[in-house]
Amino acid sequence: MKLYSYFRSSAAYRVRIALNLKGIEAEQEPVHLLRPEPLPAYRQAHNPQGLVPAIETGEDGLIPQSIAIIEYVEERFPQPALLPKGLAERAYVRAAALLIACDIHPLANLRVLRYLKRELGQEQPAIDTWYRHWVEDGLGRLEAYVTAQGRSGRFLFGDGPTMADCCLVPQLFNARRLECDLAGMPTLVAIDARCQELEAFRKAHPSVQPDAE
Amino acid sequence: MKLYSYFRSSAAYRVRIALNLKGIEAEQEPVHLLRPEPLPAYRQAHNPQGLVPAIETGEDGLIPQSIAIIEYVEERFPQPALLPKGLAERAYVRAAALLIACDIHPLANLRVLRYLKRELGQEQPAIDTWYRHWVEDGLGRLEAYVTAQGRSGRFLFGDGPTMADCCLVPQLFNARRLECDLAGMPTLVAIDARCQELEAFRKAHPSVQPDAE
Repeated sequence: MKLYSYFRSSAAYRVRIALNLKGIEAEQEPVHLLRPEPLPAYRQAHNPQGLVPAIETGEDGLIPQSIAIIEYVEERFPQPALLPKGLAERAYVRAAALLIACDIHPLANLRVLRYLKRELGQEQPAIDTWYRHWVEDGLGRLEAYVTAQGRSGRFLFGDGPTMADCCLVPQLFNARRLECDLAGMPTLVAIDARCQELEAFRKAHPSVQPDAE
Repeated sequence: MKLYSYFRSSAAYRVRIALNLKGIEAEQEPVHLLRPEPLPAYRQAHNPQGLVPAIETGEDGLIPQSIAIIEYVEERFPQPALLPKGLAERAYVRAAALLIACDIHPLANLRVLRYLKRELGQEQPAIDTWYRHWVEDGLGRLEAYVTAQGRSGRFLFGDGPTMADCCLVPQLFNARRLECDLAGMPTLVAIDARCQELEAFRKAHPSVQPDAE
């Protein structure tokens, strides 16, 4: 399999973790998101959705969207599982992952911050405030949800990593880069620290990717 | 089951369609998103994630996040299926749904448009331009993806509705409300028109909900 990735893309980082947890070796093809040429060329040649990550699976073709990729590898390579067995438990893990993927990350990614700057003429302090607002708001909601559900243990669900942890760790990495206030999220911060103890998460870290700068 | 909904919420509209396609009767409890009190009260009493939709399932508790809800009803009530059988086909449907749920809708929903106005002091024309930019950009990506994959028929996948159509129809409804240019998306527009022929879609329309204004 080939993974179209960018070292600092939060969504690509999710998929790198999931592939590592599954023990799937994927060749990485970096798409540099800050330079003008690579993304349009990649969109034209490989992925009409035009964003990273995507995986080229061989027999099942190209799959874009990080959550669709993780669901796909879960179905194709069921062990070790990234979703629990029970319906309520699966829904909890997906709802935690999707809170990050739908309610936090889309508002804080590169193309949106660029639009704020270029099209809306916002200065950097206002852009940083925007970023921190959505990330802190969303992580506060996640902390409250996880605490209320009472299903977390060493990880967001019980004592093994799931799809939800694949999403949490990249989001906290980004939150720290932009100096978000994580004081109100002790459960999430503690789980993130435990994830960092696993090689699957460490190997997926942006700083150790082939295109890291 | 009880569905926490708001008639004009695009994410709630997705879930209403999915429940109708499955033939599941759910009592609707509206949460008025434009008034100041109902949302915080709902967040406090029912859903720590604090957004609509969510379903109260009874035996499996409260489930937030529209895509997590649709995956849950698909697993609990497999027929009629909202996902195809094959792995590649499932990934295609999810990747189409998630493009809408992650790359389009989060940038165009009410709380974000409000932030642009109140915190960033943007005037209505700039806010409308923001809205149209992300919706037209995202729907253009979806049209290209669907066309390139060649898996659509009367619906986004083949000749029956799936999770992807549950996401498409609310997004096109919203796009038309804000007068987006849909000329570049003939496949999506034609599929949307076929969906409107089905009672499951018509019954989910914002204009016929109990809280419609």
